[in-house]
Amino acid sequence: MIAITSPQNPHIKRVIKLNDRRARDEARQTVVEGVREVRLALSRGIVPVEAYLCPELIDGAEAEAAARHLRTIAASGMTELFLVSPKVFTKMAYRGESGGLLLVIAYRPHRLDELQFRGNPFIVVVEEAEKPGNLGAVLRTADAAGADAVIVPSPEGGRGTTEGRGTDLHNPNVIRASLGAYFTVPVVAASNEQAIAWLRTRGIAIVAATPAAEALYTATDLSGPVAVAIGSEAWGLSDTWLAAADRQVHIPMAGAVDSLNLSASAALLMYEVVRQRATPIKP
Amino acid sequence: MIAITSPQNPHIKRVIKLNDRRARDEARQTVVEGVREVRLALSRGIVPVEAYLCPELIDGAEAEAAARHLRTIAASGMTELFLVSPKVFTKMAYRGESGGLLLVIAYRPHRLDELQFRGNPFIVVVEEAEKPGNLGAVLRTADAAGADAVIVPSPEGGRGTTEGRGTDLHNPNVIRASLGAYFTVPVVAASNEQAIAWLRTRGIAIVAATPAAEALYTATDLSGPVAVAIGSEAWGLSDTWLAAADRQVHIPMAGAVDSLNLSASAALLMYEVVRQRATPIKP
Repeated sequence: MIAITSPQNPHIKRVIKLNDRRARDEARQTVVEGVREVRLALSRGIVPVEAYLCPELIDGAEAEAAARHLRTIAASGMTELFLVSPKVFTKMAYRGESGGLLLVIAYRPHRLDELQFRGNPFIVVVEEAEKPGNLGAVLRTADAAGADAVIVPSPEGGRGTTEGRGTDLHNPNVIRASLGAYFTVPVVAASNEQAIAWLRTRGIAIVAATPAAEALYTATDLSGPVAVAIGSEAWGLSDTWLAAADRQVHIPMAGAVDSLNLSASAALLMYEVVRQRATPIKP
Repeated sequence: MIAITSPQNPHIKRVIKLNDRRARDEARQTVVEGVREVRLALSRGIVPVEAYLCPELIDGAEAEAAARHLRTIAASGMTELFLVSPKVFTKMAYRGESGGLLLVIAYRPHRLDELQFRGNPFIVVVEEAEKPGNLGAVLRTADAAGADAVIVPSPEGGRGTTEGRGTDLHNPNVIRASLGAYFTVPVVAASNEQAIAWLRTRGIAIVAATPAAEALYTATDLSGPVAVAIGSEAWGLSDTWLAAADRQVHIPMAGAVDSLNLSASAALLMYEVVRQRATPIKP
């Protein structure tokens, strides 16, 4: 256990540098902060590369339990543990209220071929989340709706790794906005071709949301193995996904403002799957 | 028309000061920026107190049409128009990409007794939005779902004005996050008592969302005159609203993360109203 009181310490500087995507992708590491997020990471068996504790900022039973857990795994030599002063912690943590806990963890490189289903497959495809916070919000809703995974496809992908060029899956803002659902719902990058082939092979129907569709999302059968696909707010789904779709559906919009936001559209589609699985609609 | 090139100009300083709630509440004025937002404001007949144009930043037909509109009403003496340099504009606008258009407008003080319905009343009650961005997102979805109004009640209210103490209805971030739905869906502050009495008098059923409810939101009749009520993410609805509710419903949650975010919950409830109005459920 090492005490750090200077913001110039190279460890601290490195953590701050992980705010930059290039540094993250190079190290294949990202930052987790916040009591709830840290607790969820630990509860999924994640062993951080480094853990930073600020005893003065740790508050509440949950945070203390997480700190004890970190001390235990550090004592066994699995994690490097640092005790930092409040001044230093506030400098490294994005949120002031991070509860005195911060982890550096390896990227979670989920792959399509390892995905597991709890039952009837239920996948969410988000073609372009634009902002990390949007992807985090989708993950949070996917957790609540019981989805098995969120796939983020990209035309440039195809490397079979978790990083698409476009969306930055492991951005600390994804983890923050997901409130830790990043650790409970696998988020997988894949090329369009890989993702579509993977879904087809498993008999999972691709249901694409697009304003141009005639069918209403609530009048279309979503009760079987399903992947609901949503495009960016600005551009919608690409032709690739529209062409690959088994069904196209629209969400009705009455208003003057152009579109629902991505996380609202995603929530409506996911919870329509939930609704129909409880009460299948009649064709 | 007045040209401004110095950020020290008192008009510019005043606009920047309107980022502060106290200054806004004192002047009862707020700031609108962005092409879409300005266009929606103008399309609803809003005459700004002041309009700021940066010709170098105006881009695209929509922005130019809005600029022409502003020049016309300024020429008639209804609005004071300022032409500002890019340097000054960037300093006053919260978003760089605000398209060279910024308005100072009077608060829109909607009152319960002036609310109008397009048909079957459909109201959204948001007890505590916590962040202005959340309220903006709810407004955006309310616009898409065709809701008649969003009521933001508060125990401290009761002044019959648009300002509750808690939620800052006219925060520029509400307008931004709403993409301009602030101008299309009336947002009304009221005391709890006023709001509940107003809904009861009109025979509008209060449907409260709470995890403790037994009834599923998709299995509860929402097809009549309805007000869906949502509390804060942290605390849920107050006892006042739970007690006032005609029905309590829950949104099922499968996951490890505690709750859906406010805008997702609101979207699900609003669109369940939309769905049931198209296809009433059977009791």
